[in-house]
Amino acid sequence: MNGAEIMLRSLVSSGIDVCFTNPGTSEMHAVAALDRVPEMRGVLGLFEGVVTGAADGYARIAGKPAATLLHLGPGLANGLANIHNARRAASPMVNIVGDHALEHRKFDAPLTSDIEALARPMSAWVRTSRSVNQIAVDTAEAVRIARSAPGRIATLVLPADTSWSLPDDDTHEVETPSEIEGPIPVKADVVESVAAILKSDGETSALMLGGAALLEPALTFAGRIQAATECRLFSPTFNARTTRGAGHVRVEKLPYFGEAVVSLLHKTTQLILAGAPSPVSFFAYPDKPSDLVPAHCQVYEAATSSHDLTSFLSDLADELDAPSEPGRRAGAQRPPLMSGDLNPGTIAAALGHLLPEHAIVVDEGATSSFALGPMTEGAPSHDWLDLTGGSIGQALPVSTGAAIAAPDRKVVCLSGDGGAMYTIQSLWTQARENLDIVTVIFANRAYAILNVELGRVGVEHDTSRAKELFSLDRPELNFAEMAQSMGVPAKRVETTEAFNEVFAERMKAPGPFLIEAMIDPIQLG
Amino acid sequence: MNGAEIMLRSLVSSGIDVCFTNPGTSEMHAVAALDRVPEMRGVLGLFEGVVTGAADGYARIAGKPAATLLHLGPGLANGLANIHNARRAASPMVNIVGDHALEHRKFDAPLTSDIEALARPMSAWVRTSRSVNQIAVDTAEAVRIARSAPGRIATLVLPADTSWSLPDDDTHEVETPSEIEGPIPVKADVVESVAAILKSDGETSALMLGGAALLEPALTFAGRIQAATECRLFSPTFNARTTRGAGHVRVEKLPYFGEAVVSLLHKTTQLILAGAPSPVSFFAYPDKPSDLVPAHCQVYEAATSSHDLTSFLSDLADELDAPSEPGRRAGAQRPPLMSGDLNPGTIAAALGHLLPEHAIVVDEGATSSFALGPMTEGAPSHDWLDLTGGSIGQALPVSTGAAIAAPDRKVVCLSGDGGAMYTIQSLWTQARENLDIVTVIFANRAYAILNVELGRVGVEHDTSRAKELFSLDRPELNFAEMAQSMGVPAKRVETTEAFNEVFAERMKAPGPFLIEAMIDPIQLG
Repeated sequence: MNGAEIMLRSLVSSGIDVCFTNPGTSEMHAVAALDRVPEMRGVLGLFEGVVTGAADGYARIAGKPAATLLHLGPGLANGLANIHNARRAASPMVNIVGDHALEHRKFDAPLTSDIEALARPMSAWVRTSRSVNQIAVDTAEAVRIARSAPGRIATLVLPADTSWSLPDDDTHEVETPSEIEGPIPVKADVVESVAAILKSDGETSALMLGGAALLEPALTFAGRIQAATECRLFSPTFNARTTRGAGHVRVEKLPYFGEAVVSLLHKTTQLILAGAPSPVSFFAYPDKPSDLVPAHCQVYEAATSSHDLTSFLSDLADELDAPSEPGRRAGAQRPPLMSGDLNPGTIAAALGHLLPEHAIVVDEGATSSFALGPMTEGAPSHDWLDLTGGSIGQALPVSTGAAIAAPDRKVVCLSGDGGAMYTIQSLWTQARENLDIVTVIFANRAYAILNVELGRVGVEHDTSRAKELFSLDRPELNFAEMAQSMGVPAKRVETTEAFNEVFAERMKAPGPFLIEAMIDPIQLG
Repeated sequence: MNGAEIMLRSLVSSGIDVCFTNPGTSEMHAVAALDRVPEMRGVLGLFEGVVTGAADGYARIAGKPAATLLHLGPGLANGLANIHNARRAASPMVNIVGDHALEHRKFDAPLTSDIEALARPMSAWVRTSRSVNQIAVDTAEAVRIARSAPGRIATLVLPADTSWSLPDDDTHEVETPSEIEGPIPVKADVVESVAAILKSDGETSALMLGGAALLEPALTFAGRIQAATECRLFSPTFNARTTRGAGHVRVEKLPYFGEAVVSLLHKTTQLILAGAPSPVSFFAYPDKPSDLVPAHCQVYEAATSSHDLTSFLSDLADELDAPSEPGRRAGAQRPPLMSGDLNPGTIAAALGHLLPEHAIVVDEGATSSFALGPMTEGAPSHDWLDLTGGSIGQALPVSTGAAIAAPDRKVVCLSGDGGAMYTIQSLWTQARENLDIVTVIFANRAYAILNVELGRVGVEHDTSRAKELFSLDRPELNFAEMAQSMGVPAKRVETTEAFNEVFAERMKAPGPFLIEAMIDPIQLG
């Protein structure tokens, strides 16, 4: 058993059985070892941003890490943007990055670069496995770090000679991680303090929920707290995973633009953080605040995303003698299908009308997403996955990984046209693995958000050349044709009726499909 | 004039007038400033790997840097692989990376990351411009570094507040770089020593040429040295730019695989390096040497790529009293067109037969490239651009930038199907800018090189699952359809006759076009 096989078997023994990859020569022994470790499923992506984004989506749904196998520094670099998004999602991930053999590094061959330095900004842990006698321990440690609460990025650099060598003896074969750091319990006195804060007179309180607090059963506990205290329940704008829909306690998502957040928080005087950061502006703007908490509002950080949020909310509900059931759960209520001109609102209505139970919605619709929340809150129970790190090009890969994690669930991927082009190669993997994903491209032929932002930054002169750089209509992209060229059947639709028909059909039929929804950019403000 | 405009005007004053970009909100003021600085041409790419690869191609042909404008850490990360290739090509490049406003960083908003740390492994110089009063000086310094011999990567991080602020007074506006470090002269005693080495009896000598030594007039001087000494002229396998074809001195390119290099260098006893590194294996293999220089061969590093190679070779020719003309220049000799089954050999013949004068060939054909060199060496004078850093996905972007640098020259882009998928979004920019590029996709439906490598690493067990990860035929990609979906007209061809016809036609017609050449993987060894 060489180093590569020890690495794979250690991953499998640690519960990791999916490896998203785009390998090269330096990973050859790891790829070859796949034939000796059939428990590990290898999934090929044609670009590393697909690979790392898929690992993120997999982790969000499976609740455990996938591995990635990447080709030296440039392969890792290509995957970094979606590792950034995964890091912001607190998704566990184990990246295995092949490197030159240790003795080969000094020759500075063309593909040589400082892989550890590239990995560090986006990783919680980086190590180079310098010997085959160390690879089992190093792999187990990577898994331990990745699985530690709330979920982290571990990057293990695997020199080719570590991969191809044989260990000195069998004491160096196959390790599993010991002592994974689970979520940190929130202390009883913190629970008591928060309860006291929520009960104080004359205050308007809100809980800001993040991480596992947006999943069941935590949501139910939050709803019981709400029933006891009338507090509002908020979440950040972008979350790794939120369970929502009919029967679930409704959480108000903060809007994207800072002014709207300030307005929403206007009446709140006490904001309790439970797994979420204090609200800040996504970008800074001249003469606008970055900190979006009103001056009259006191912020209490009760628990971070590393805490045991489910137990915390349960304990808090008990401490408050909360009713056994939430006062308010979203009712089952679907909007009617709409007709006429196709726009983000009519598409949102179709989603709300047709979304099947247990669907996974991956949302990177940007300016086209605004109507989705309200239109789908009464749809059957589903999970909602957001763009967590702001790096567009995440929806298609995350959908790919989510579908691998949950082959029995329908995945609906919503993407702007600009974002979709970043990692469009995802479609090929979806076709190859026959994944049950319906991708909707909001084809407004622009980086529409940037036109909005251009108005917000106070530029007063002529901006025709600037706007040209936000426009995708010269030439017009044809996503339906593009999808078909990668093996995914697709249809371009121009009316609401046509969208409704094909979307309804695809909610019932399995397999990958792309709908190119030709819309005008949404008008804001 | 705000910081963004000062930055743009400083670039223009320093001779940089093309900016490849994929901007976002943090770069909004820089984009807006484009309307006030019409001398700067903004070229949009739909993915940052396109942007940085285009800047590389531009620099190789224009001989001066372009700027890139990138969106925070993830935008830079997406561009790093082609920055790696550019660094290996010694291409000058000035990357401007927007960041959050300095005061906004502490809030750790979702897009926050350590941009300097990400930039450092691939950059010769990294700086954050922390004040609008500093931006002119910082921009000029970035240009100075980039233009210093032989060409470097300079990355300037531009916080949004530096961009939107006004300077204290007009002494802080617009700077140009002072004292660009030109190529280092090679000392006379080195020239004399090398001449003596080349003249020593009983030795078989070779010059290993790299960088500017592969361009005219250096090539002519090298040919004169060859005429005087009978030395062989070699170059590395992968070079930023080589001028070749009829009338030029022929340089033997080292083959890719180490065994073949060892065999080629077999008789050489003295190897003089002039702008090229000593030959090393691209990858390491068990029980194979990384250093490919035979034990009996002495290596002399006469000049690095930072030296004035043209003057060095001229001085060396004079020192040797070399004839005024090279003994051997490649004759004008085109191969006949071939017919029958389409394969890399028949495609290479078509290139040799049809390549127009002053064409720029960008070669990332990998296993399909082997026949190209001999078939084109008698074609009219042209430039050949290789994949310099081994990170595939470079040919389409580099072609894009090369065509912007030389709108009057035909660009022929040769790419494997696997590599093309990395940065396929390049086609859209080619359509948008109406660039004169004919892209040939060697569609063998595999990462063919990896199948070869799998055989080379000595794996003996069944490798069917491994090979599945190198296969691109499930589903089959349709590049012609894909190109059309991005606005580039295209044709799929299955026979040599069909290839010849469409390639001949496109050598005469301007504008972007893609030919999908359906071939079988080349059989090696």
